[in-house]
Amino acid sequence: VKLLSPHSFPTELFRRNPTDHKGDSGRGLFIGGSDGTSGAALLACEASLRSGIGLLSAIVGKNAVQPMLTRTPEVMVRGYESDLQNQVNLLAEKSDAIAIGPGLGIEASAKKILETVLTLKKPTLIDADALNLLSKYPELWDAHGHEHCVMTPHPLEAARLLNISVEQVELDRFSACMELTKKFGCTILLKGSGTLISKKQNNVFVSYFGNEAMATGGMGDVLSGVILAFLAKSRNCIESTKLAAFVHAMAAEQASNQGIIGCLPTDVSNNIRLVIKETL
Amino acid sequence: VKLLSPHSFPTELFRRNPTDHKGDSGRGLFIGGSDGTSGAALLACEASLRSGIGLLSAIVGKNAVQPMLTRTPEVMVRGYESDLQNQVNLLAEKSDAIAIGPGLGIEASAKKILETVLTLKKPTLIDADALNLLSKYPELWDAHGHEHCVMTPHPLEAARLLNISVEQVELDRFSACMELTKKFGCTILLKGSGTLISKKQNNVFVSYFGNEAMATGGMGDVLSGVILAFLAKSRNCIESTKLAAFVHAMAAEQASNQGIIGCLPTDVSNNIRLVIKETL
Amino acid sequence: VKLLSPHSFPTELFRRNPTDHKGDSGRGLFIGGSDGTSGAALLACEASLRSGIGLLSAIVGKNAVQPMLTRTPEVMVRGYESDLQNQVNLLAEKSDAIAIGPGLGIEASAKKILETVLTLKKPTLIDADALNLLSKYPELWDAHGHEHCVMTPHPLEAARLLNISVEQVELDRFSACMELTKKFGCTILLKGSGTLISKKQNNVFVSYFGNEAMATGGMGDVLSGVILAFLAKSRNCIESTKLAAFVHAMAAEQASNQGIIGCLPTDVSNNIRLVIKETL
Amino acid sequence: VKLLSPHSFPTELFRRNPTDHKGDSGRGLFIGGSDGTSGAALLACEASLRSGIGLLSAIVGKNAVQPMLTRTPEVMVRGYESDLQNQVNLLAEKSDAIAIGPGLGIEASAKKILETVLTLKKPTLIDADALNLLSKYPELWDAHGHEHCVMTPHPLEAARLLNISVEQVELDRFSACMELTKKFGCTILLKGSGTLISKKQNNVFVSYFGNEAMATGGMGDVLSGVILAFLAKSRNCIESTKLAAFVHAMAAEQASNQGIIGCLPTDVSNNIRLVIKETL
Repeated sequence: VKLLSPHSFPTELFRRNPTDHKGDSGRGLFIGGSDGTSGAALLACEASLRSGIGLLSAIVGKNAVQPMLTRTPEVMVRGYESDLQNQVNLLAEKSDAIAIGPGLGIEASAKKILETVLTLKKPTLIDADALNLLSKYPELWDAHGHEHCVMTPHPLEAARLLNISVEQVELDRFSACMELTKKFGCTILLKGSGTLISKKQNNVFVSYFGNEAMATGGMGDVLSGVILAFLAKSRNCIESTKLAAFVHAMAAEQASNQGIIGCLPTDVSNNIRLVIKETL
Repeated sequence: VKLLSPHSFPTELFRRNPTDHKGDSGRGLFIGGSDGTSGAALLACEASLRSGIGLLSAIVGKNAVQPMLTRTPEVMVRGYESDLQNQVNLLAEKSDAIAIGPGLGIEASAKKILETVLTLKKPTLIDADALNLLSKYPELWDAHGHEHCVMTPHPLEAARLLNISVEQVELDRFSACMELTKKFGCTILLKGSGTLISKKQNNVFVSYFGNEAMATGGMGDVLSGVILAFLAKSRNCIESTKLAAFVHAMAAEQASNQGIIGCLPTDVSNNIRLVIKETL
Repeated sequence: VKLLSPHSFPTELFRRNPTDHKGDSGRGLFIGGSDGTSGAALLACEASLRSGIGLLSAIVGKNAVQPMLTRTPEVMVRGYESDLQNQVNLLAEKSDAIAIGPGLGIEASAKKILETVLTLKKPTLIDADALNLLSKYPELWDAHGHEHCVMTPHPLEAARLLNISVEQVELDRFSACMELTKKFGCTILLKGSGTLISKKQNNVFVSYFGNEAMATGGMGDVLSGVILAFLAKSRNCIESTKLAAFVHAMAAEQASNQGIIGCLPTDVSNNIRLVIKETL
Repeated sequence: VKLLSPHSFPTELFRRNPTDHKGDSGRGLFIGGSDGTSGAALLACEASLRSGIGLLSAIVGKNAVQPMLTRTPEVMVRGYESDLQNQVNLLAEKSDAIAIGPGLGIEASAKKILETVLTLKKPTLIDADALNLLSKYPELWDAHGHEHCVMTPHPLEAARLLNISVEQVELDRFSACMELTKKFGCTILLKGSGTLISKKQNNVFVSYFGNEAMATGGMGDVLSGVILAFLAKSRNCIESTKLAAFVHAMAAEQASNQGIIGCLPTDVSNNIRLVIKETL
């Protein structure tokens, strides 16, 4: 196990050149935020913008469209359409990376979209409900899984993916992480105190950055957004995930200087830019 | 009567541990904010988030859904559905505490929801229209009332609950508060200059924190939100109420440093985090 | 003509006492903000809150409801209903003062509402489209006009009210103002560089506060909101108007310190509280 | 080629006089922001307000109406109506300048609106989809084009307008810019690192202000808004474009002081006022 260190990031993957145009900063697509969990989409996309994504499209539940425009007019946002798969395909085609899951829901239509996304073989962040879909329908991954994915389960989601109990995950987080990398052959970030990050290789990074301010709903959605931005820029799953874990946790530390209790995911997003400035 | 003092709070009930996850910070459910008084829901939920609630769900009038997503994407918000009771039951089951009342309305459907909530016997904050419902339908409390409730009437609501005039309440606020604790057998916070807080025991606390900046509509909704957060974390009605009264009033004092006239409930919410930081 | 001076305000009319409750701070009702000019309602209500109104209700066009909730959840806002007159009556009855006009429109339904409002004989601010309605239908004022009104025309609106040309107004603003007070027998504020304020008495005040940052659409809506707040608190038309003119102009001066060009009405609103703090 | 210099602007064209009223600051109309690209309208209009436009109307897709009211209640915004051409004519008639394009779409209805706007012969900013429409339907310009237009293509849009490849544009940006001025006989701003600005005369200005923070989606929409404001005030195409390019780039430099990666168009808008204060 290696400690995640602020000195270990290949920052040249993420920096901009003076003559870059917006396409060079990476194009991302976010899919999620169905009714009842619409806020997840807002949190993730805002974090993605603050992490420097060049162009961001989003397909979200109807209730999330106008709030997203209001908060972040920079996102090209559309509500789910009747021909959702076609809609996803059109936007995904032009994207460097995709994030799917936060607030997606686990209905049959959600399953179909996840399948569509996986078949594109693009760098893809899989979180929250998209992980639950993989637990519920293992055949999805068997048929369409690929190594250019990043999965970011919390212990309960990890337990479901591994068909074990959450206590077993917590008892030996390292083994759980290794099992996930073995089973899915892609980049894994196991959430919790002492975040673990690993790829196919027998190589696990642990991050002790961050604090208990992160024990608040929506913090994971922000992480998804950060990973999406770095993935769209670099297309490098493991390095994007490591850097995002660091930036996310440091931004939470910064944000919680004004108080740990009552620190919100949106406060964290507002600190991402500063942390990146000092890191990249 | 005891003076509420900043040194008297059992803060271990509200602090977080470094390894806590979001569930440990408490799960709350807010119900209210019907059309015409939708803002009450927004004010209460925002205050709850700033008071450190771990996960917050809300069931609100249709007009409040998108504004709440826009202001506080951290809330998992849903509009009232046709099968509202079932909706409430599903979300309440997973909650550590419930707040009901601000902007709820007093229609028959509102009565039915209040009944549903009371039967769950969870730590419950009852304010505004939910108090008016208890005045209008005393049989509700007779059948389903329980001690894990906090009621936060202003003098007029107190008068209605006790079937006396508001002048009688104002004439002897202490007696009115004691009558309420006797009648309902739960925690009572009687609003007004010199806020009174009491539980079953013959034990009344008075708070002189706060100032005339609080003589503005919506300040009570903020208090409801603060109580909900502390209740979800500690499940302790009297201590949550005492701490919330203090935090709310101190946040108002802080906020009114920039001017008493024109100080708004949202300004108070923005100061909650700082006050908690200095208190807990 | 007397110069408006910061030392001339009977501030005891507007101050709060330590034991005041929200009702003591004044209850206001705003009516306006139809589709196409919805923003006027948002600007006016926000300014009213920042001027210390205790409770604010608003009846606005459908498009303005959710934006108002999002910006200022403190307002109890409702969209125009089919039985608009009844809706207005119910809310107006409980109000200390009413503001009508900004973004109201001049359709037949708007005329009917203005008539309803005038018949209530409450302290009433009449601006923008409500002034245009009075120009178009002089019989409205003849039948229902009363002295507890404040009218705030800009030169073009004044010209229409007096059936003269705008050039004639500009040529002798003092005479125009006097003509308006004579014709309507209520408080008049004639906008423009060198704002004139007068009541029935042969007594005109001129204000030279403010600057060219105010040459931006929406500044008048802010003024309407400030007047409404002071009117609801004091019910004194002439003193509310004088104080509001001063506070509004000083807030604009403060706001424009960060740049005159690009200074917006919402910037002015954000400075009202500070100016009041220093004035009252 | 001349270097754009902060000392070269005829600032008297853009300054306000102490006795100006809102009409003197310029009336603008923005048309764009259809569903899926609604945010472009929000970004442009916000920038226009921050650049000092006196009165701003907007005709936008339905999804953009309430977000625009929420973010910038100063805009008189309407959703596309069924009789869109009539709607455009009514508002355009009262405007000093028009901006059309960002998020407009390229459907037949969009083409019809662009035609309507061009026939009015008012100072007009043409960007984004409006440029794409001119590429797709060259007959539009042949029939209705006029010199009081400003076109702001990025290299890909320039390539389409000239029927050459984007590589050819990038290879000799100067020639491409001159070709565009020759072909359209109006003011051209060719985006990219080393922005080029030219009018009919054989006279090209180059701006090296700005930095890689601008390599983010939505930055061009902000520029459109700035140009609209200056055009509405001065009706001078070339001077408005030169000043806007400078102000936009300097505001981006200011905004990016807090971090280049994650700097957003809305951050740039928030810095426009300060830059104008120091420039005009």
